[in-house]
Amino acid sequence: MKVVALLTDFGTKDHYVGVVKGRILSGLASTQPPIFVDITHEIPPHDVRKGAIVLLFSFKYFPKGTIFLCVVDPGVGTNRKAIILQTEDYTFVGPDNGLFSYIAKNERIKACFEIDREKVMEPPFSSTFHARDLFAPAVARLIKGEDPKIFAKEFPSKDLTILPLPTIKETEKGLIVPILDVDRFGNIITSFHRSACKRKFKVSVNDNEIPVVQTYGFAKKGELIALFGSEDFLEIAIREGSAYEKLGSPEIKIIWED
Amino acid sequence: MKVVALLTDFGTKDHYVGVVKGRILSGLASTQPPIFVDITHEIPPHDVRKGAIVLLFSFKYFPKGTIFLCVVDPGVGTNRKAIILQTEDYTFVGPDNGLFSYIAKNERIKACFEIDREKVMEPPFSSTFHARDLFAPAVARLIKGEDPKIFAKEFPSKDLTILPLPTIKETEKGLIVPILDVDRFGNIITSFHRSACKRKFKVSVNDNEIPVVQTYGFAKKGELIALFGSEDFLEIAIREGSAYEKLGSPEIKIIWED
Amino acid sequence: MKVVALLTDFGTKDHYVGVVKGRILSGLASTQPPIFVDITHEIPPHDVRKGAIVLLFSFKYFPKGTIFLCVVDPGVGTNRKAIILQTEDYTFVGPDNGLFSYIAKNERIKACFEIDREKVMEPPFSSTFHARDLFAPAVARLIKGEDPKIFAKEFPSKDLTILPLPTIKETEKGLIVPILDVDRFGNIITSFHRSACKRKFKVSVNDNEIPVVQTYGFAKKGELIALFGSEDFLEIAIREGSAYEKLGSPEIKIIWED
Repeated sequence: MKVVALLTDFGTKDHYVGVVKGRILSGLASTQPPIFVDITHEIPPHDVRKGAIVLLFSFKYFPKGTIFLCVVDPGVGTNRKAIILQTEDYTFVGPDNGLFSYIAKNERIKACFEIDREKVMEPPFSSTFHARDLFAPAVARLIKGEDPKIFAKEFPSKDLTILPLPTIKETEKGLIVPILDVDRFGNIITSFHRSACKRKFKVSVNDNEIPVVQTYGFAKKGELIALFGSEDFLEIAIREGSAYEKLGSPEIKIIWED
Repeated sequence: MKVVALLTDFGTKDHYVGVVKGRILSGLASTQPPIFVDITHEIPPHDVRKGAIVLLFSFKYFPKGTIFLCVVDPGVGTNRKAIILQTEDYTFVGPDNGLFSYIAKNERIKACFEIDREKVMEPPFSSTFHARDLFAPAVARLIKGEDPKIFAKEFPSKDLTILPLPTIKETEKGLIVPILDVDRFGNIITSFHRSACKRKFKVSVNDNEIPVVQTYGFAKKGELIALFGSEDFLEIAIREGSAYEKLGSPEIKIIWED
Repeated sequence: MKVVALLTDFGTKDHYVGVVKGRILSGLASTQPPIFVDITHEIPPHDVRKGAIVLLFSFKYFPKGTIFLCVVDPGVGTNRKAIILQTEDYTFVGPDNGLFSYIAKNERIKACFEIDREKVMEPPFSSTFHARDLFAPAVARLIKGEDPKIFAKEFPSKDLTILPLPTIKETEKGLIVPILDVDRFGNIITSFHRSACKRKFKVSVNDNEIPVVQTYGFAKKGELIALFGSEDFLEIAIREGSAYEKLGSPEIKIIWED
């Protein structure tokens, strides 16, 4: 059975997500319907970079064969490409605007296809809702087992739109690390990954050193701490509180100890 | 496999939606469970008209045979009817309070049934949660293939409760068009449909003319525009911004050009 | 087909819930995937008591055999137990921090197991996301029909962590009843259950008597009323309005009439 994982900036107050699922199901004829899993629909409107980060944090926990339908698409209806990316284990469908930047950086891309609108969209179709009128029918065809070559044209992966990623600055004593994300709990997630951490270090936030712990529960209630979170990026947190509410977007430094 | 699409004002912070799905599944015995698709649960509390509009914007993208369970129900527990509507392709279940006004206006109603509480609700049942205690068991019986005549009584479709729909005012030079909806992106959706647009026209918002474009991406960032949206109603939008935040509920006019 | 019902404080803006579902599906091999039903993910962060109440209000409407994955877990990564509870009809999986207090109070517990991390978590795993790395794989094994004894150790139910429940105070003339919950509609749900109501009574809110009715629709718009809600607890409500917005957390008294 296929899994279709969805990631959009559509929110949940309107009918947009439901209609996309309806349209996928409508395109299946007698093929067994997929399991839909919502990653999130609360990407801030038009925030392609945030969509790319959330996709990076999510995709590898899904079963092989999962199709990811990802739509954060300020350029909907213009001539940005509508694409299908294939990796060893997964298929990604969405606009070519940088949303798949981290996938392209972290996975080997087996093939890229540009969807041919003429072959997929059925008139009358809208210029403002490609998730429903273009991407959903393409996903339905993939679920049915169609080869993307039938309705899309291969292009070289070097032509993918890639966003510049936030960079870590080196200083004399260590690193200044940018913020990747803030989660629902107010944890501030930095771009400093555990794998980049080959020396002993201290963490400073707005020039105050804070303790590094293994998990939230080892801190006192209300204490400001640093720890490696669920994706192994360093995060700034307050036990049972919101670091973001207290600090906003602070300056976060790694200071090498030796 | 059956699809059950849900539209309510229950929100997602409480257990209400989950419990309705649980109750449907509990009523199926060995019948194959449906696929649930949430249209939205964020209809503002008790806003029947808004529920009716969102249903209008959604239903036709779902596969034939879909059952729509729609509950925005300020009169729950009183003697408003609990109904089942059948059209050529779909079945609608919910309170008879105008929620199906646009379905009745746009589709041919094949049959209307009033659900017989005595035959569907199992005591003890609540007076405040018919979605769980009355509509969910009715939906389960429909999924199992039961004829509604077994637990509901047919009535003529002319007895359906219909809400008065917002009307477009004609003026000397054109039209004054009411607002139907505001979506998550702050796009202001009017009741002016592309099909009503047989002459060339300009759009004015609070007496300032704004350009009509084909899609958001053809405007400059921050520019106020008019375009036909995904349901072919004219909408007022700002590229990568919120027209509603800027304008609230402005006066929107169509001015004929010839 | 198995049902997995989820209740967390993860919210829906991040990828957390999606990833947990992905991880469950990844652990199934060729076993038929479950139906996921979200009870809610909007439990306020770390509010174990609220999670326990919402679970109480929900579980019995689900089909026999449902697995409840419940995670409100401020102690994640510390040495609080990760547990599986079995009742006659259901299985509950989550942290042992009081989240299952009302289940333990209302249902007969057949068996309690402490999950053995070594047998379930696959390195590398995080200390901050046990829902993904510990509970989800355990749920997958339960779906596959594994006996919990294979990866968990039985312990006596008397060792379960139980939260003290809010208590009703008796006075000379009646009761002072604490507030259990406030729902999306602003209805204030008290801990006074219909079964505790063996005499005629009046309800007072901040020392003003208010009428007791059968359902919202029998009140006038804007009128403050008391009624037994969908779980048979007395609630304070305003027809088509929010009692919570008007009153906050008022003092609610039951006054015996004879």
